[in-house]
Amino acid sequence: MNGAELHKLLEQVARGEVDAASAESRVLEALRARPFEDLGFARVDHHRSIRQGFPEVILALGKTPAQIAGIAAEIVERGSTLLITRATEAVANAVRVRVPQATYYADAAIITFRQQDVAPGKGMIVIAAAGTSDLPVAEEAARTAELMGNAVERVYDVGVAGLHRILGERARLASARVIIVVAGMEGALPSVIAGLVNVPVIAVPTSIGYGASFAGIAALLGMLNSCASGVSVVNIDNGFGAANIASLINHL
Amino acid sequence: MNGAELHKLLEQVARGEVDAASAESRVLEALRARPFEDLGFARVDHHRSIRQGFPEVILALGKTPAQIAGIAAEIVERGSTLLITRATEAVANAVRVRVPQATYYADAAIITFRQQDVAPGKGMIVIAAAGTSDLPVAEEAARTAELMGNAVERVYDVGVAGLHRILGERARLASARVIIVVAGMEGALPSVIAGLVNVPVIAVPTSIGYGASFAGIAALLGMLNSCASGVSVVNIDNGFGAANIASLINHL
Amino acid sequence: MNGAELHKLLEQVARGEVDAASAESRVLEALRARPFEDLGFARVDHHRSIRQGFPEVILALGKTPAQIAGIAAEIVERGSTLLITRATEAVANAVRVRVPQATYYADAAIITFRQQDVAPGKGMIVIAAAGTSDLPVAEEAARTAELMGNAVERVYDVGVAGLHRILGERARLASARVIIVVAGMEGALPSVIAGLVNVPVIAVPTSIGYGASFAGIAALLGMLNSCASGVSVVNIDNGFGAANIASLINHL
Amino acid sequence: MNGAELHKLLEQVARGEVDAASAESRVLEALRARPFEDLGFARVDHHRSIRQGFPEVILALGKTPAQIAGIAAEIVERGSTLLITRATEAVANAVRVRVPQATYYADAAIITFRQQDVAPGKGMIVIAAAGTSDLPVAEEAARTAELMGNAVERVYDVGVAGLHRILGERARLASARVIIVVAGMEGALPSVIAGLVNVPVIAVPTSIGYGASFAGIAALLGMLNSCASGVSVVNIDNGFGAANIASLINHL
Amino acid sequence: MNGAELHKLLEQVARGEVDAASAESRVLEALRARPFEDLGFARVDHHRSIRQGFPEVILALGKTPAQIAGIAAEIVERGSTLLITRATEAVANAVRVRVPQATYYADAAIITFRQQDVAPGKGMIVIAAAGTSDLPVAEEAARTAELMGNAVERVYDVGVAGLHRILGERARLASARVIIVVAGMEGALPSVIAGLVNVPVIAVPTSIGYGASFAGIAALLGMLNSCASGVSVVNIDNGFGAANIASLINHL
Amino acid sequence: MNGAELHKLLEQVARGEVDAASAESRVLEALRARPFEDLGFARVDHHRSIRQGFPEVILALGKTPAQIAGIAAEIVERGSTLLITRATEAVANAVRVRVPQATYYADAAIITFRQQDVAPGKGMIVIAAAGTSDLPVAEEAARTAELMGNAVERVYDVGVAGLHRILGERARLASARVIIVVAGMEGALPSVIAGLVNVPVIAVPTSIGYGASFAGIAALLGMLNSCASGVSVVNIDNGFGAANIASLINHL
Amino acid sequence: MNGAELHKLLEQVARGEVDAASAESRVLEALRARPFEDLGFARVDHHRSIRQGFPEVILALGKTPAQIAGIAAEIVERGSTLLITRATEAVANAVRVRVPQATYYADAAIITFRQQDVAPGKGMIVIAAAGTSDLPVAEEAARTAELMGNAVERVYDVGVAGLHRILGERARLASARVIIVVAGMEGALPSVIAGLVNVPVIAVPTSIGYGASFAGIAALLGMLNSCASGVSVVNIDNGFGAANIASLINHL
Amino acid sequence: MNGAELHKLLEQVARGEVDAASAESRVLEALRARPFEDLGFARVDHHRSIRQGFPEVILALGKTPAQIAGIAAEIVERGSTLLITRATEAVANAVRVRVPQATYYADAAIITFRQQDVAPGKGMIVIAAAGTSDLPVAEEAARTAELMGNAVERVYDVGVAGLHRILGERARLASARVIIVVAGMEGALPSVIAGLVNVPVIAVPTSIGYGASFAGIAALLGMLNSCASGVSVVNIDNGFGAANIASLINHL
Repeated sequence: MNGAELHKLLEQVARGEVDAASAESRVLEALRARPFEDLGFARVDHHRSIRQGFPEVILALGKTPAQIAGIAAEIVERGSTLLITRATEAVANAVRVRVPQATYYADAAIITFRQQDVAPGKGMIVIAAAGTSDLPVAEEAARTAELMGNAVERVYDVGVAGLHRILGERARLASARVIIVVAGMEGALPSVIAGLVNVPVIAVPTSIGYGASFAGIAALLGMLNSCASGVSVVNIDNGFGAANIASLINHL
Repeated sequence: MNGAELHKLLEQVARGEVDAASAESRVLEALRARPFEDLGFARVDHHRSIRQGFPEVILALGKTPAQIAGIAAEIVERGSTLLITRATEAVANAVRVRVPQATYYADAAIITFRQQDVAPGKGMIVIAAAGTSDLPVAEEAARTAELMGNAVERVYDVGVAGLHRILGERARLASARVIIVVAGMEGALPSVIAGLVNVPVIAVPTSIGYGASFAGIAALLGMLNSCASGVSVVNIDNGFGAANIASLINHL
Repeated sequence: MNGAELHKLLEQVARGEVDAASAESRVLEALRARPFEDLGFARVDHHRSIRQGFPEVILALGKTPAQIAGIAAEIVERGSTLLITRATEAVANAVRVRVPQATYYADAAIITFRQQDVAPGKGMIVIAAAGTSDLPVAEEAARTAELMGNAVERVYDVGVAGLHRILGERARLASARVIIVVAGMEGALPSVIAGLVNVPVIAVPTSIGYGASFAGIAALLGMLNSCASGVSVVNIDNGFGAANIASLINHL
Repeated sequence: MNGAELHKLLEQVARGEVDAASAESRVLEALRARPFEDLGFARVDHHRSIRQGFPEVILALGKTPAQIAGIAAEIVERGSTLLITRATEAVANAVRVRVPQATYYADAAIITFRQQDVAPGKGMIVIAAAGTSDLPVAEEAARTAELMGNAVERVYDVGVAGLHRILGERARLASARVIIVVAGMEGALPSVIAGLVNVPVIAVPTSIGYGASFAGIAALLGMLNSCASGVSVVNIDNGFGAANIASLINHL
Repeated sequence: MNGAELHKLLEQVARGEVDAASAESRVLEALRARPFEDLGFARVDHHRSIRQGFPEVILALGKTPAQIAGIAAEIVERGSTLLITRATEAVANAVRVRVPQATYYADAAIITFRQQDVAPGKGMIVIAAAGTSDLPVAEEAARTAELMGNAVERVYDVGVAGLHRILGERARLASARVIIVVAGMEGALPSVIAGLVNVPVIAVPTSIGYGASFAGIAALLGMLNSCASGVSVVNIDNGFGAANIASLINHL
Repeated sequence: MNGAELHKLLEQVARGEVDAASAESRVLEALRARPFEDLGFARVDHHRSIRQGFPEVILALGKTPAQIAGIAAEIVERGSTLLITRATEAVANAVRVRVPQATYYADAAIITFRQQDVAPGKGMIVIAAAGTSDLPVAEEAARTAELMGNAVERVYDVGVAGLHRILGERARLASARVIIVVAGMEGALPSVIAGLVNVPVIAVPTSIGYGASFAGIAALLGMLNSCASGVSVVNIDNGFGAANIASLINHL
Repeated sequence: MNGAELHKLLEQVARGEVDAASAESRVLEALRARPFEDLGFARVDHHRSIRQGFPEVILALGKTPAQIAGIAAEIVERGSTLLITRATEAVANAVRVRVPQATYYADAAIITFRQQDVAPGKGMIVIAAAGTSDLPVAEEAARTAELMGNAVERVYDVGVAGLHRILGERARLASARVIIVVAGMEGALPSVIAGLVNVPVIAVPTSIGYGASFAGIAALLGMLNSCASGVSVVNIDNGFGAANIASLINHL
Repeated sequence: MNGAELHKLLEQVARGEVDAASAESRVLEALRARPFEDLGFARVDHHRSIRQGFPEVILALGKTPAQIAGIAAEIVERGSTLLITRATEAVANAVRVRVPQATYYADAAIITFRQQDVAPGKGMIVIAAAGTSDLPVAEEAARTAELMGNAVERVYDVGVAGLHRILGERARLASARVIIVVAGMEGALPSVIAGLVNVPVIAVPTSIGYGASFAGIAALLGMLNSCASGVSVVNIDNGFGAANIASLINHL
């Protein structure tokens, strides 16, 4: 039973052409049989924007530049904010043809074009990164968080082997409402930082390293086993996901 | 909007107390706001029995005998058929106190008490097992399949290292509508059997073996990589799951 | 002992040239020594076509275009239906030179040329896919199933994070006799769909994802541990295998 | 230089017995040479209570009942709130001898004795669990969250194979400021729930399952690869850790 | 068609009661229809004894003492040689009740009772073991090899960290026709020994070790990657299997 | 003390220039102090040729064509037989410049130039391969075995899903003194073949497959867990190693 | 509170403008609030050079040639010694433009330019390598150790399958104060060498090998499980790290 | 050729009974044939004590109390120092019967009886441990190091989540000549400590933790991937091995 059918049925009841009892049984039947159906009056994407706090995001990984440019154009036409992650230079070139206003942040491998206002986050999101090789993931997080309306403070190159550098940033760390910590290799930085602050820490293992780093497994396991409280973890290299969670928390 | 409210609303429309347009908007609102809610007229368990073709099953693993006996009594009281898998002797004793009619099949580690008629399966389910150590899993499958209304033929002790035994059972294998193959160690039996027949083969890796069998991983990988077509796989030691799938197929 | 020798021996017995006892011992010897030998009256490939319900399939992975084109030409010459999976553009070009009638489905990476009639499946095979990146595997399954004589319904882009999309497709899912569910990342879609229907679900993990998806292991493990009944699993990215099983079931 | 020495030095400066310049150089020396040393006027544990928002927690795993009882008595004597996780009945008996006021929650394997007031959390923490076997972990999270001053709503037995149960709880899920989702087996529940709400979801994989669940690895990988945004993950069975993070978020 | 039927048929042909042509067609039919069937005149186990060079072996792992004693009694009654591996003291006690002549070698966890003569091997099998903890596996190999008719020389406690011990045994190693090398931990002994001799080396990784030995995986991988030629590997702790292969080679 | 020094010393003793006692103490000193030293009169490679039954083999993997050509020229100049494994076309071209007589077997990725006579093996080495994709590894084994003086029989394309093909080759399998079985995917072929014969079976897992074949791990585990006796295993894709072992056995 | 503020405060106390008690409380507050802050009198890099015994090292892996050249120029300008590891030819070209005096060791993939004197190590560092394919890692260690002021002795091509080669180098091994052992495949060399000497052995697994070497995991596990005492292990291919540790030991 | 034979031969040469050439060839033959033989003048155990710096150590794991007591008695009788690791109370009781002077350190699971003087180490060995659960491994290291003649300083309970505790111990850490760091869970402590000091750090991962700690794998990987220089790693829980290496270094 779609909207038009319901409209017609209720008109008939009002006109006495259908009695209340049989109308009731037909509506109940519809409710029982297809409570979950797409009712035709809601577009999936708008729904998502409402439910998830952010419009569709395009993960460029494994799509062709042409495919990505097509989806991007569609999103922009609809008036939504555009966010493409893991975008190469080739993707950026293809997107710019269709969406000339798009900006490509090469260090974050992100393409964006903001069209909608977002509510500002309530505090600061600090993004800490252990080494310079972790920066692409950290920047993916930083650009995503900014696009979602958050003030972002970058605290980079603070590996645990040089404690004085971390300790020297204690003031900035303490200013955060939520902290994203990006680290590869042994992934110890979230433990150390979570021991210094009293806010949620989102840990992002990176695939940086070689040999027994196993493309991020060592860092991932280190973070999951953190002896510090307040640390939760996202997938390896998932800067976008961490920013999304941090933004959710920062908008509470 | 529950059934009573709908009833009342439609009565009001019929009586002209509410016009069709506002009734429509209220019904639509209900549809939009709570399309997924429990509507109050369906019990979860009955639903499952209808949707899944089989009542609730109790996996005894990690529950105390007392807990299991309690749940079993509740199911039996409701008039449903009882099926408990991975049941130890201690579980059986506890259940018998509450459900004296229950039967314990020690070789299958299964407790059952049939209360509902089931539709008979259309053909034969053959259950093949590679070694005698695989029998508990094979029997879990066999008893489950029988309880679900299927004729079951057991073809046991037909490891691939003794081809003449498998080949000697070709007639029985050929009589099947669907075959469950239970094997540990290298897990090669499903490939060999699927090469001899033209019906779906459900492969069940078992945790039988030692050393590099890694508690069933070797068998699981062997089965997932089967070079024979027609083989799909369930979890290690999951005789119940295999029987469930085979029964679904046998009732088509 | 081949047919001619048996013929000659029995003639000799009949003529009294060989006594029954020594004939018996010679026949017994032959039975003992070579019960498994190729008896000369069955060609391997025809056998397979009869036993397995489908002629030989060429897995292009790890073969050169020239090799594949050669095998394809041989199959077509024999009058069999051609099916090549995991075919690149280069393979397609090489095959077209030898088999000009062949069709290349780039989105499924499949090349086919149907020459034999197949019995139609009894119901609908629904192929559900979680994300757009899973489509190559889903299309491999879809094209294979169609070639095997099945009606196929595609239900794509129904990830578990957007339940309304899955629920909106409940009618189509309910129309299936067997469902193939293709999903990468966490591989949760088969559990959700199997909870909505009462038919066998063949789950195909895909290698889509990054980091801790471990090229499909996360999805594979998720599917093997499905809490829903009725789910069996095939190898990562094995769309062809899933279609083969689904077709077997659909032809029962 | 400890507190007493500093006191004495400043008194001497005030009395003119030590001039400002040499006092300055002595204080600077202390700062340079031992900026990180235990200064003698701060107990480690108090520090932690201040920095981390919660007093010391005893993880009973791998400690003897006697050891645990000793540490518990010390904490209680100090006036701190007691929290022991993974406590067996034997541990509870030993602790009760030393801390008679302690309460043992067997279903959560937790022992507590609250002595300090905690600031109330700002919203509701919903704790969802997939199956009854996941309850010990869920209860560890629930009891911990309550002890930390949070209102907790339990939404149990909502596995993804029975979507209607999850959907029927949408109202309660929507009431949360942060959600903890506890699930074993395929670990798909966080993805489904995160798709329905717009708040942070902390996913806790459990070691529930058998075979290819690999003691929680399947669930862990499923959660790390969640296709829904807003999901971060803690260690397998780490209900306490999840509650700690959720409480941090709920107190922001 | 079993032996009796064949006998009768050929008698009839000889007597002219059945003509050669119809006898031929009946024999051919039997061959075609059931080439692989158990023909009724050969017991499976005798077959195995003939084909595999050794009677049935009972792997005690995962069987009850009562079950094992029953199978043992049956084998002995048949006149076959008895061999039970991985036998505990409890198993030995149960077997002795049924087979009083059986001998239990506790250090090898083996029970045997020889009833059949075996052909003597052509040379010496040397069994080398790295450490004293590897002896149970080494002795399983040694006792098995002896039972199979081989002369066995034990060269124990020759770990690679004490090269002089290995080198001091060069004469005995050089006397071997085939060498079994049993080693846990890093599993380096086969490489070192294979570099000193010119005969086949069967490497048996053991589950001896702790931590990163992963119950034998480290040793298994070490052996599979041996830089010395002539090394092949069997499953972790599989002393029986190694002896079986060595005996096959020694009887060539 | 090298050969020249020993020569001189003994001459001096013979001429009475050095007395027996001091000569003895000098020789003893040499023996004690440097029993393991390179004595200067034995080239390592000759030693190896004597001890290991085969001259040096060049594994091309990870070396440049120029490096390989250089080593090859050196070996050939010395009069030794040349064997290069895993050789690409580029390697072959580089080697031909330096060793024009070398033969490149592209299907085996092997380059050889025989210069030394080898003792003929005593029997036949049968090399069985499951699928056409396994042929490069099978041919590496076959060419190596032939170069080492063995008669080789190739039995290819006998996967376990088509038992009649394996059974049809029983006569050829039975003719072997040792069998090499090459298989990828589930690696079940060695079990099946070892069940049919009574000779040693060397199993070679190949990296053929995709998804859960994990580049040969599935086949490797399958082979290590073989339920058939007589199967030992070498590293994934190690056709050369298998041939080396088989040749050792065949020369006993 | 910085130095100036402290100066002023103490002056005030001395002048009686601030009493001792309030000065004490302000100093204590400063101590409590910022015990870890960067005190402004130490540059990070100088610190590292002092604390770690070696200036900053650039790991080229995952950085662009331009980035590396920039960092290199900065280090050289500061007067520090330059060390770049894992440098390709392209990196070397880029660095030479900015730092013409830099030397590129292609076999070690290392670029260096020494500007600071280093204290000479007290003894010899011997670097042993199993095979020629391990040389890049061995050379990375050798060049690093030399740059750090150590005398280095290279003992290459001493695999465990040819013991006479290792034993022939016993004198050179015995001359070491610390030994670095570089090996791939089964990684057995450190065990053998540690059994011959009485000095610390640093084991470096390499990613050399194929199949079940799993890119160095087999060697890593072998080394971690070494039965010889005195062996500690670094990451796969980490020649630099091993040299760093060896140099620390050699400078004690 | 033994000493007597050599003596006789040289006498014969001196007497002219054997000419130099044939003597040379006989000596050469002896050298070739047995360069590696045990020369009869060195006992294995004495050798080890000399070469390895420490007498035999008994790893109790997997041996019976009776076996261990027997070996212990033998070592003590020989006058050597006794060291048994991983000893349970039962082992201690059995050993005390045979070696009444032995001391059992339950917290270290170590039994010792010193009979030989050891050279004192040159500096201090600091043993740092992250948590109280790591103490058994730390104490195994501490007791071993002390028995080997080293001064040991214990720095326990300094987890990375409480940096102030580590920093407060900087003076003691700085006093070390070599540091052993024992840590489970994420294993980050070695990185942090190695960043603070300039001496070799031996990292010992422990099997402490649960879930994704995987019995020490997480800690092991963390340590292998340490971003700090100077860290090498031993097997999980191998406190003895770490102490052995540290003692070697401390005696240089």
